[in-house]
Order: sequence, then structure tokens, then C-alpha cells
Amino acid sequence: MISTATKPLPNWTWEFHGHHCPFMPIGYRMGLVAMRELGVERVKDHSVFALVEIGVGHPQTCMADGVMSATGCTYGKLLMERLGYGKMAMVLHASGKGTVRVYLRSEFQDELAKQEFFSYRKRGVEPSDIPSEVTERAVAVVLGATDEQLFTISRLPDFAFGRPKGSFAKVKCSRCGEYVFERYARSADGKVLCIPCSGYTESRPDPLKGGQ
Amino acid sequence: MISTATKPLPNWTWEFHGHHCPFMPIGYRMGLVAMRELGVERVKDHSVFALVEIGVGHPQTCMADGVMSATGCTYGKLLMERLGYGKMAMVLHASGKGTVRVYLRSEFQDELAKQEFFSYRKRGVEPSDIPSEVTERAVAVVLGATDEQLFTISRLPDFAFGRPKGSFAKVKCSRCGEYVFERYARSADGKVLCIPCSGYTESRPDPLKGGQ
Repeated sequence: MISTATKPLPNWTWEFHGHHCPFMPIGYRMGLVAMRELGVERVKDHSVFALVEIGVGHPQTCMADGVMSATGCTYGKLLMERLGYGKMAMVLHASGKGTVRVYLRSEFQDELAKQEFFSYRKRGVEPSDIPSEVTERAVAVVLGATDEQLFTISRLPDFAFGRPKGSFAKVKCSRCGEYVFERYARSADGKVLCIPCSGYTESRPDPLKGGQ
Repeated sequence: MISTATKPLPNWTWEFHGHHCPFMPIGYRMGLVAMRELGVERVKDHSVFALVEIGVGHPQTCMADGVMSATGCTYGKLLMERLGYGKMAMVLHASGKGTVRVYLRSEFQDELAKQEFFSYRKRGVEPSDIPSEVTERAVAVVLGATDEQLFTISRLPDFAFGRPKGSFAKVKCSRCGEYVFERYARSADGKVLCIPCSGYTESRPDPLKGGQ
């Protein structure tokens, strides 16, 4: 089994992310481990899905940028969603290959938390304003760990996953005149309108439920 | 006013995205236009937000990867969300600088739709399986257009935007033993549990509402 510690992060992953921090590389290695477990390559198009268990209103979400960079499961290709559990874990699902979950071990979270980087973050200092030697020490703890120190891996044999049915159909909103994909069009006063013009905000498709 | 047509896409943006297609560069130029209008640089940390009006279950969402790449407003940094209107537009919000909306002109959407690239896509051919000369012709239509041909730009002076309050507090789920950020912890049978262990799925914070 090849360790992900031997696979360095491409420079562009840092450029994409915008700053150095320890959680982007955690997500990158998490993505590599999940791909290795399922036996899949980085996805060019749309056949693999990465679901991150993070939520909002908490730190360390940078891991999602690492997961996108490693797996090719990007938000723009609709291959990345948050599950909103507030946990440092991800699920990778590949049709015909199964589903795997990778969790950042609690012991490693405790160990990493001792890094000075986090005392800056808790005081509200932005990552790019933290002294680079402090940041790089935290990054080195991540890159120097073995996969076994970092992650627990489990298969999810019963994982059910679907995506809303796709359609190319679009219409013009009769008020603002802009194009809108038809599944998002609404009807008000007998006219076809986009959501902002209609005033409706309900009943949009759940991004994680199929067949709608 | 500097045209975004003179600013080529870095190679890493294609690498991040995973395939060539016309909508990633549309998003990239859309992001550049929005930044130019607000007078902001690519964001390293967390001070600018990009909201894309796309939904799910429709094509052309690749624009979001271009927006992330241009602006630095990434999903992992919680600076990128879908508004779910099914429209080819984005909103860029920078504290103290205001809010701008950029829409891909309907006339340009009509013109671009004539490209052979889309007849492949409608037959279900994945972008990386489309002959590269077909794809590059569609990309060239995007890169060869002026900003005025591509976009309509409007200021949103009344745009209200908030993010859920952040907290570093975390607890261990008393069933699975994993760490969970406390705002996502639930109580069941008098014990603190993570969402999957609790069986509850309701009441997670709305990523686009502040003060929760």
C-alpha cells in the first residue's frame, strides 16, 4: 500500500487555496487515501463524488479545498457537497467501486491542536498574517505523519447516493428577461419567472437526492 | 478599464478543473470582472464572498470552478455558495467595497449554444471525450469575446449578507467517539451525539444567514 506521505502537493494547490495552512494538505492527503482505497484516478469529468462532513461556522474547513484538488471532485462540477455534520471526515463515492469514509483521527487532531498556528487563529489572525515559520511547522506535522497516524478508513457498503436529474432546458424570465434553467423557473400571475423575480424561495432540489 | 480578455487563464486552473470546457473560463472572466468592479484583489484569506446563481441538475455549472480560481473565494474557505436560481450569474461581496452582480448575457448564451461542443454534451458525451478541436473552438469563442459581449454588470446596493458565527468549540460524540464541532452536536437520551449517531437531520445553520 503506497503511503500518501510520498506524494507531494503540487504548487498550484496552494495557489488555488490562497494561503498556507495545515488543513488544506490534510484534505489533499485524505482525498488521496480515499482514491487509493477505491482504486480510482483523479476524476476528469463527473463519475466520482466527494462529500465532506464539515459544516459552516467552524474552522478547519480548508480541508475541502484539498479534497477537491486531490480528487478532481470540484464544487463547480457538482461533485463536492458538504454533509453538514461538523466533522473532519470525507466520503468518496464512485459508481461501481463503492464508497469509503476517511476520518481525521481524534488523536491526530489533539496532537496538531498544540501547534502555535492555532493560537494565532483563535485570536482571529488570518492565515496569511501568521509568521510563515509558525505555519510551516504546522504543515510539516501534517506532511510528516503516516497515513495510519492521520486517518481511520471505513467502507460504507449501504451508502445510498443520488443526484437530481439533469436537464438542458432553459427559459427566459418574463420579468427580467434573463435565462433560467427550467427546473428553477417559477410561475406567478400566470407568467414564467426566475426565483428572484417570483419572490418564491421554497422547494429547490436537494443536491444530495436523486430522481427529482 | 482593463479588459479581462487580455488576462490569460493560468494553466493550473485547467488542472484544478480536470477538463477543458467553455464554462470554466467564463467563470474565470466573470470573477475577474467582478473583482475589477469592486476594486479588490484575489482573496488570500476570508474577506470576500462569491455567490453563484447556479443550481443543480443543469449543465454549465463549471463556471463556479472558474469563479473560485479567479477570485480565491473557494468552497473550502466557505467563501463560495450556490444561490440556487439556475442562472448564469454571480454576486461578489466585499466588506466595505460593496456588492456587484455579473450576468452572462443572453445574447452571448445564444451565440455560444451554436457550438458543436454542446451537441456532444446533450448526447451525454463527457467533456474529456469530446474531440479537442471541438472543445477548443468553443473555448476560443469565450476567450475572444470582449467583456461587453460577455457580461452585464450591476451594483446591488441593498444586498444583505451574513455568515453563521464561528466557534472553535468541539466535543466528542459519546457514541462513536469522534470529534464534532459543537454547533453540530445534538442531544439524545441525555447524551451528546454527532448528527449521524443522533439520527437527527434538522436545524443545521443556513450557510447564508448570519448571527446564528
